[in-house]
Amino acid sequence: MNGQQQAYDRGTNIFSPDGRLYQVEYAREAVRRGSVSVGVRGHDGVVLAASKRVRSPLLESEGIEKLHKIDDHLGVASAGHVADARRLVDFGRRRAQTDRLRYDQPMAVEPFTKAVTDHVQEYTQQGGARPFGAALLVGGVDTNAEGELRPRLFETDPSGTPYEWQATAIGANDDVVREYLETNYDPDPSVDAGVELVLSALAEARDEPLSPEEVDVAIIDPTYRELGVDARRETLESLDLLADGAS
Amino acid sequence: MNGQQQAYDRGTNIFSPDGRLYQVEYAREAVRRGSVSVGVRGHDGVVLAASKRVRSPLLESEGIEKLHKIDDHLGVASAGHVADARRLVDFGRRRAQTDRLRYDQPMAVEPFTKAVTDHVQEYTQQGGARPFGAALLVGGVDTNAEGELRPRLFETDPSGTPYEWQATAIGANDDVVREYLETNYDPDPSVDAGVELVLSALAEARDEPLSPEEVDVAIIDPTYRELGVDARRETLESLDLLADGAS
Amino acid sequence: MNGQQQAYDRGTNIFSPDGRLYQVEYAREAVRRGSVSVGVRGHDGVVLAASKRVRSPLLESEGIEKLHKIDDHLGVASAGHVADARRLVDFGRRRAQTDRLRYDQPMAVEPFTKAVTDHVQEYTQQGGARPFGAALLVGGVDTNAEGELRPRLFETDPSGTPYEWQATAIGANDDVVREYLETNYDPDPSVDAGVELVLSALAEARDEPLSPEEVDVAIIDPTYRELGVDARRETLESLDLLADGAS
Amino acid sequence: MNGQQQAYDRGTNIFSPDGRLYQVEYAREAVRRGSVSVGVRGHDGVVLAASKRVRSPLLESEGIEKLHKIDDHLGVASAGHVADARRLVDFGRRRAQTDRLRYDQPMAVEPFTKAVTDHVQEYTQQGGARPFGAALLVGGVDTNAEGELRPRLFETDPSGTPYEWQATAIGANDDVVREYLETNYDPDPSVDAGVELVLSALAEARDEPLSPEEVDVAIIDPTYRELGVDARRETLESLDLLADGAS
Amino acid sequence: MNGQQQAYDRGTNIFSPDGRLYQVEYAREAVRRGSVSVGVRGHDGVVLAASKRVRSPLLESEGIEKLHKIDDHLGVASAGHVADARRLVDFGRRRAQTDRLRYDQPMAVEPFTKAVTDHVQEYTQQGGARPFGAALLVGGVDTNAEGELRPRLFETDPSGTPYEWQATAIGANDDVVREYLETNYDPDPSVDAGVELVLSALAEARDEPLSPEEVDVAIIDPTYRELGVDARRETLESLDLLADGAS
Amino acid sequence: MNGQQQAYDRGTNIFSPDGRLYQVEYAREAVRRGSVSVGVRGHDGVVLAASKRVRSPLLESEGIEKLHKIDDHLGVASAGHVADARRLVDFGRRRAQTDRLRYDQPMAVEPFTKAVTDHVQEYTQQGGARPFGAALLVGGVDTNAEGELRPRLFETDPSGTPYEWQATAIGANDDVVREYLETNYDPDPSVDAGVELVLSALAEARDEPLSPEEVDVAIIDPTYRELGVDARRETLESLDLLADGAS
Amino acid sequence: MNGQQQAYDRGTNIFSPDGRLYQVEYAREAVRRGSVSVGVRGHDGVVLAASKRVRSPLLESEGIEKLHKIDDHLGVASAGHVADARRLVDFGRRRAQTDRLRYDQPMAVEPFTKAVTDHVQEYTQQGGARPFGAALLVGGVDTNAEGELRPRLFETDPSGTPYEWQATAIGANDDVVREYLETNYDPDPSVDAGVELVLSALAEARDEPLSPEEVDVAIIDPTYRELGVDARRETLESLDLLADGAS
Repeated sequence: MNGQQQAYDRGTNIFSPDGRLYQVEYAREAVRRGSVSVGVRGHDGVVLAASKRVRSPLLESEGIEKLHKIDDHLGVASAGHVADARRLVDFGRRRAQTDRLRYDQPMAVEPFTKAVTDHVQEYTQQGGARPFGAALLVGGVDTNAEGELRPRLFETDPSGTPYEWQATAIGANDDVVREYLETNYDPDPSVDAGVELVLSALAEARDEPLSPEEVDVAIIDPTYRELGVDARRETLESLDLLADGAS
Repeated sequence: MNGQQQAYDRGTNIFSPDGRLYQVEYAREAVRRGSVSVGVRGHDGVVLAASKRVRSPLLESEGIEKLHKIDDHLGVASAGHVADARRLVDFGRRRAQTDRLRYDQPMAVEPFTKAVTDHVQEYTQQGGARPFGAALLVGGVDTNAEGELRPRLFETDPSGTPYEWQATAIGANDDVVREYLETNYDPDPSVDAGVELVLSALAEARDEPLSPEEVDVAIIDPTYRELGVDARRETLESLDLLADGAS
Repeated sequence: MNGQQQAYDRGTNIFSPDGRLYQVEYAREAVRRGSVSVGVRGHDGVVLAASKRVRSPLLESEGIEKLHKIDDHLGVASAGHVADARRLVDFGRRRAQTDRLRYDQPMAVEPFTKAVTDHVQEYTQQGGARPFGAALLVGGVDTNAEGELRPRLFETDPSGTPYEWQATAIGANDDVVREYLETNYDPDPSVDAGVELVLSALAEARDEPLSPEEVDVAIIDPTYRELGVDARRETLESLDLLADGAS
Repeated sequence: MNGQQQAYDRGTNIFSPDGRLYQVEYAREAVRRGSVSVGVRGHDGVVLAASKRVRSPLLESEGIEKLHKIDDHLGVASAGHVADARRLVDFGRRRAQTDRLRYDQPMAVEPFTKAVTDHVQEYTQQGGARPFGAALLVGGVDTNAEGELRPRLFETDPSGTPYEWQATAIGANDDVVREYLETNYDPDPSVDAGVELVLSALAEARDEPLSPEEVDVAIIDPTYRELGVDARRETLESLDLLADGAS
Repeated sequence: MNGQQQAYDRGTNIFSPDGRLYQVEYAREAVRRGSVSVGVRGHDGVVLAASKRVRSPLLESEGIEKLHKIDDHLGVASAGHVADARRLVDFGRRRAQTDRLRYDQPMAVEPFTKAVTDHVQEYTQQGGARPFGAALLVGGVDTNAEGELRPRLFETDPSGTPYEWQATAIGANDDVVREYLETNYDPDPSVDAGVELVLSALAEARDEPLSPEEVDVAIIDPTYRELGVDARRETLESLDLLADGAS
Repeated sequence: MNGQQQAYDRGTNIFSPDGRLYQVEYAREAVRRGSVSVGVRGHDGVVLAASKRVRSPLLESEGIEKLHKIDDHLGVASAGHVADARRLVDFGRRRAQTDRLRYDQPMAVEPFTKAVTDHVQEYTQQGGARPFGAALLVGGVDTNAEGELRPRLFETDPSGTPYEWQATAIGANDDVVREYLETNYDPDPSVDAGVELVLSALAEARDEPLSPEEVDVAIIDPTYRELGVDARRETLESLDLLADGAS
Repeated sequence: MNGQQQAYDRGTNIFSPDGRLYQVEYAREAVRRGSVSVGVRGHDGVVLAASKRVRSPLLESEGIEKLHKIDDHLGVASAGHVADARRLVDFGRRRAQTDRLRYDQPMAVEPFTKAVTDHVQEYTQQGGARPFGAALLVGGVDTNAEGELRPRLFETDPSGTPYEWQATAIGANDDVVREYLETNYDPDPSVDAGVELVLSALAEARDEPLSPEEVDVAIIDPTYRELGVDARRETLESLDLLADGAS
């Protein structure tokens, strides 16, 4: 970094001469400081997974919440600054609940995502606050009037841009994981295949087997549910990804 | 850049000694960081097109929204900071809807454009926020009391100035594309000719053929509709602009 | 410029040791960055004219609005930062309309001008916003209770000072144009002579003939009307000021 | 000026170590940048006069307003930043009108002056705005319950301090003019003698004869009226102060 | 002064490392820039006096108000920044009037003083405004339920601290005057002896005789009244303090 | 620390280039400046303990409050800036009380914790305030509809992140104490064993025996109660941890 | 002090890298700039005393208020910035009065103290104001439902932390006085012994005898009363602490 960059990177509401918003780019670095989360869209649902760093055996790994149910048909996986992510999740839950009460039906995945990104964008343009140092993967299943299901997977980034993905990752080593996904993703997999893919991708990122305490998995097909620790262990074992000695 | 310029370029609400607003000029650079969008006005409608960068095969190119329907007779193409553009589009949609409800008729293209630019200007004069790092091409067809149609094409820039064009471009390499348009635009073309022109212009800017996933096209003649991926592929093929191996 | 000046020129609400407001002076430079506008007061009305830079043949020159009707008897010509001028014009229109509704008669030219300059002054004294980088020529015809007409011509500058003129110019090369006017203005001309004068003055400033697309002309005598492109071409031709090849 | 002073002169709401308010002192310099105004109190009324710089023969000298009627019995002459002075005059007019409506009698000269100076003081103590770069001479005639008249002459300065004078000057070369007044003022002159005195003083300041366009004169005895251009010419002529060739 | 001090003296709401508030100390310097005021408490009343600098023979010395009646039983003498003092006096008058209306009896001297100092303190702790650059001597006579009179004399300083004195001075050379008072004050003098004392003290500070135009005197015993110019001249003469040639 | 870090560590609402929030990290240091607090979760309740520095024999050690009852089933131990911790405790009490009134049942431990951390997070993102320099251990026992008890132990840190623990420490030497706990914690101990564990851990951190005045202990099983000084002395004695000569 | 410290000590709402709040520490220095106050808790009441610096024989020492009655059972002694202390006292009085009106009984000493410290803490965390440069000793006697009395003595410091003491001092040389108290305090003295202790401690701090004008003493046993000057002289004399020649 040089003095030129430093002249423009300490205010959220200024552009650099080449049109960049440095505080937003630094917030993206905050996302990369968090452990990785992965999402995969299948033909029958969406799979979200998050790796967790358990820094002490006394820390309850279940208490490290990186997967969050938003509504029956909707969940998110977060990465980055934990407290910021929690705040976005709270915003999203209130928004989804309000929408459901107003229209008497679940909020569709895309408008939900955009409500979140609009909220995120405001913190990049107005003075007096910093951007959110967190990104979300939003997974959900919409049901149309004919009862047809449509799984969707979105990413919200610190600039407030929404992206739709078949499969992607956010957080530490997101590029490694995304490359793995690009190589190994078969279009429109089943959620079962999706679970295998996300766990393989996380193991790849770590370059070592996983313990069930270090990973959370949620499936929306079309109802949100999280895999318990036993189910995670079994799956890891069946995929030959279980760390030796994992409880 | 020199120290002289640096002394005046970090506050949105100050002029430099030669009367320039540097933050607005840097916001124009933010627009040029986004991929190019093109608009052409024909005698029977307006054509908008946007090129898209699909950085991963897993990214849903349909989810990269650079064309936005505002009302039946009105659409915009954006360039620049995506989240800022989304916010302007939201502002515009609410404004057009409010206007329609109040006067029971569609909002004409020019007042719509000026409502947007007035909003943009405020962010260049008041302290506490940065300018919008996004530009819009506004295309629409007005209908007068006699039922006559009048296609219009406007640009909104980060300073909050509206421009009316026969054809123009915003975003990366906008000067190259505009030069192509100046050479190849025949006054008052049909929208069919307009579609050909915008696609040729985009191909020129890229200096290579296009895949249908990398470009979006909308026609307002006088009703807004977007070309599907098949229609885009066919058109590219018929113009001999289709990239080899494009799906 | 020296360090001494730089110490005082970045805040709108501070004086320099010699009692100057640098940001206001820089805003005057912003006015000079815009193309020139001219106004002439005659015995039977006021003439306003504005030159325009058409940077591309695809740009609709009619869309470059530098003349603005405020009310039937009142119009303005602007120079400087286009978006700022538009905002002042909007302020003026609302103000004139409110006044007309309240008193059931048109707002006189002088109070209208002072309402605008009061608004402009606030942006030079309060913190949190920059001055307006635009100046206006306000032309209008007042009618007294006996039905007598009185044409008036005012200038509003970025400090918020109103000036009354027989004829003057704002914008690029305003000094050259004003010098031409001082030499060639006969007191109380007819509006026809006024049209000739403004066009000659604009041609003088450019040092070359004019095309009708590059100049707008409005006459208030006592009702505001703008000359169409044909009328402009004919007048230029009759004055031997028409550029060769102008459409 | 040295670095010591620069450390304290850019904020309106800080004292320097020796207890000075530099921004207020710089605002006094802004007053001295304006052309001079003079006031003289006589036994039968007050005379106010202002010199004007007419920078172009096309500028309407009548439009340069430095004398302002506040109420029938009350007027002010201003010096300094024109737009700031206008704002103070507007404040004063509203204040005098409100007072008249509330108490059904004209506002006395001293309370009027103090209302203005209180307003001025606020801009020297609160942050977020600069001081007013203008001073006023307030002249008026109070009438007591017995119908006796009492002429008063006050000055308001940028610090918000009111001063009462027999005769004084504000603006460029105020010291020269005040010295002339000190030498030539006879206590309690007639307004006629006052008119002569102010014109002589202005001519002294300019060191050359005056044209009637370059000076405005108002008399309150006890009703405010301004001398027309003819009356000014005649008076200048009779005092042998008329510039050669003045219209 | 050194760089260490400069680091802490430009914000009203910060302490220096040794616990000082420099802006308050600089405001005390502003008080010392004003001419001196003196107060003496007698057994039958309080005497306030103020010296005035009359910088021009045309300036009405009566218009330089440094003594202010607050209520029948209460007055103040000010020193320092005149406009700031006026503002404090206005605050005090409104406060005393409100109190009288609410409780139907005059406000006692001590609570009045503390209402003023509380107001002053706020400007030393909150950001966005500077401290008051003025001090007041508050003199008054309280009457208890039995009708007994109690004269009181207080000082308010720029920090917002109230002090009660038998006799003291504020403003230029306050230390010289206070030293004179300490030497010459006999406890519980009569107001007549008090008048002599304050005038002697002021003459001492000037080191020369006084003219009656250069000093104001007020007595509260128990009703506020100011000595007229004749009474002042006579008193000065009787004390052999009258300047030669004083009118 | 280098200049690079200093460029980003003085504003709460900016990220450093590597995505860190320095003010939050410095607030964590403020926590470490406070004496240590410990929490242990047992199968039948939670134990909280806090060590205290009694800097004078005249200081009432009982008055140093580091354990705070929130509700019958809920308590917290604090570390860091005492006044900040008190403020968080006040926030928590009001929150728990409001919740109980609204739903007519005690607030569960996890939502209580998250209400606190949400409050803490706001002070890390909005401008105009610093983060809280305090951390809390939240201990409580939830009762479900079947009457089953569930002890919970959480930590809130200055970033606003909630962590769930079996046993942990905050404050000075938290790493030493946590290491002791990791070595000596048997899963799901009884509260009696928990009391022994926390006292041993505190003694370990001090590397010397304890006096009952230097430590507070609270047990929630399921009702909050604090051990009196006698109980503390007895327990320390029974554990052979009592300092010689401790009262 | 070094540059490192200076980087963090000019904003109230930032932490230094080692977790300190420098502005709060500087406010503690402001407390030490004030003369010392002492408090002692006895079994039958609380004694508060304050030394005063009488810088002039004309200054009314009674007017230097460092002891303040809050309610019948409650008083405070202050040290530090006098105007800040007065403001805290005003806050406390209003708070105690409100509480009494609401609950129809006197406010207990501990909640009163914490209301004050909560108020103080806010000024250390929010931007836009500086901390209070004052500390208080709060002394009072609570009466429980059985009519039993409980004397309490608290300190509030500039960080907003409450401390409970048997005896302590605040202000200049507080460490010397506190050391004297630690050596000479017998637990639960009578208020008579307490009065002797505080006066001996103050004399120790001055290293010389005291005059009754230089010290104030208040006793709450259980009703607040201040010793008159005669009582103070007698007590000093009986303790052989009376300065020679003291009135």
